[in-house]
This record gives sequence, C-alpha cells and structure tokens, in this order.
Amino acid sequence: MDERTAGATSHADFESGLSSADRLDVRVWLRLLTCANLIEAEVRQRLGQTHGMTLPRFDVLAQLYRADGALSMGALSRRLMVTNGNVTGLIDRLVKEGIVDRRATPNDRRVQMVSLTPKGRRAFEEVANDHRGWIAAMMTDLDRDELARLHALLARLKGSVLAVTTTREDAG
Amino acid sequence: MDERTAGATSHADFESGLSSADRLDVRVWLRLLTCANLIEAEVRQRLGQTHGMTLPRFDVLAQLYRADGALSMGALSRRLMVTNGNVTGLIDRLVKEGIVDRRATPNDRRVQMVSLTPKGRRAFEEVANDHRGWIAAMMTDLDRDELARLHALLARLKGSVLAVTTTREDAG
Repeated sequence: MDERTAGATSHADFESGLSSADRLDVRVWLRLLTCANLIEAEVRQRLGQTHGMTLPRFDVLAQLYRADGALSMGALSRRLMVTNGNVTGLIDRLVKEGIVDRRATPNDRRVQMVSLTPKGRRAFEEVANDHRGWIAAMMTDLDRDELARLHALLARLKGSVLAVTTTREDAG
Repeated sequence: MDERTAGATSHADFESGLSSADRLDVRVWLRLLTCANLIEAEVRQRLGQTHGMTLPRFDVLAQLYRADGALSMGALSRRLMVTNGNVTGLIDRLVKEGIVDRRATPNDRRVQMVSLTPKGRRAFEEVANDHRGWIAAMMTDLDRDELARLHALLARLKGSVLAVTTTREDAG
C-alpha cells in the first residue's frame, strides 16, 4: 500500500465528506483552501520553532523586504490583505526593536512611511532563506512543468475572482 | 487596455514586489495564498451581509452537514484544521440555538459527539446554496477542463505537502 496515498486519503480536512456529486468548482475551492492551510500551518510551526517568530511578523517583514523603498501603512495593509489597525501594533514593536524605520511624509504628516532598517534586512534574509527551503521541500513532488502549469491556472483563477469582487465593489 | 488584466496587475497582495528572479515554488505559494485570501474574504463578507453569519460558524456547519452522522469534537477540529478549544465555544452556542445536538458516547463519556439537528440541516442548506453560487461566480472564467486540471495539480501539491509534514511529525 502506498503510504503517501493512504495519508492523503485519510487526512481529515476541508475536503472531508465531499462526494463526487459536489460541484467541481466547490471541490477546487476546498482543495485550494486545504493546501493553503496545510502550508501555512507548517510555515507557522517552523517559524516558531526555528526563529521564535510569528507568521504575521514574517509576513510584514517579507512585504517590507520586497518593497522598493518605503511603504505607506495603507499600502502595507493592502499587500497583507488585512486592515490597517491589525498592523499598527506589530509595526510599533518592530520600530522599538530597531527592525523597522517609521517616518511621516514631508508633504502629508498624516501618512506614515515604513521601511526595514539595515539590521531588519539582515535579520529577515536569514529567515527568508529557511522559508524558501521549507516551501521547496513541501513542493518537491511537483516538477518545473507542473509548477508552471499550476502558476498559470492560479493566475486564471485570480483574474476571475478579482473580476467579481471588483465589480461588486464598484457597484457599492 | 484590458481592464481585467490591469486590475489583476495593480492589485496589492502577497504577490506584490515579487520579481521573476524569485523561485517558481515560492511564487506558486504566494499566488495560492492570494487566491485563498481573496476567495475567503469574499465569502466572509457575503455570509455576513446575506445571512448575518460568521465564517467559522459556516465552516463548522458545513463539516457537520457533510459528515455521515455525528462527529467527535476531535474529528470535527481535524476537519476544520484548528485546535479543539477553538471550536468548543462555537458549538456551545449552536447547541443553545437548537442547531447542533451534542451527546456523550455510551462507552466513553469523555468523548462528545456532535451532529446537526433537522432544524440545523434546513438552515444550513439555504446558506450552502448561496455559497455554491458565490464560488461559481468567482470561478466563472475557468472552463471545466481548466478546473479539472487545477483540481488535479492541487492533489499533487496536497500529497507533496502531506508527505513532508507527516514525516516531520513521525520524527517527533
């Protein structure tokens, strides 16, 4: 018996109890959600064990690292797909620790710009290197062609989802 | 200019700031996470607006609905991919509202079994019908063949992720 198949079949998650009578689009969504939850849980656990770091903190540092220069708090929140208030306390702590630099913009003092300090960049690079390794290990069964096809299909999905949510927002 | 493409490109999310130099597996993961977050946010908002229902409540009801008979609290938590404690308070409220039935197993009184009441099943079916419609609308750009290919690639990914996480758990 293939243990990997057995594991995948008996694993209890959002797909449990689905029947082939359920709609394919719903089954795609629940499998997508299950994959995201599994990967996120693994990353969360390894971040804690290896670096004593929470996932929200890693996500904030990753966005600031990839940003070209400083980000406004609003832009940072949009990239994290959360509300502004959720990020403020975390940024406060990162500023105190010397990992993030925060300053008002000269022309509009209400807009706070945040960026990684050199110390913050160095600290994040070490964690990011491990993070890449964890993701690579979790995706090791997929060859480059499969990854490319998955990436392209997820682009189709993202466009389809955004078309619906954008339309609704425009309609009020 | 294609507005849909423009929207997808300018949308700020977990993929923002990625360059083509970043590893393909990391780009797949961030796109998967972005899709999951977008769909989940839309479902959360519509559940609240249309049915005054939270997403955790919907998820619990969906698992109980799809279960064949009653589930132990442990099995329910595993399917929801959360810890037991997170579900207990929600189940308490659902029992008070007459939506969920909870009883001890005859041979082990420490194990609580939960199931939907007939009232709970009827209430959930109405919401589930709307939910299917929201998912269908968000995936409308993908034809059946694309959905099938995405479903199959996500199965490959899920198996790959589970192989890593299972191995680690076995190793302690």
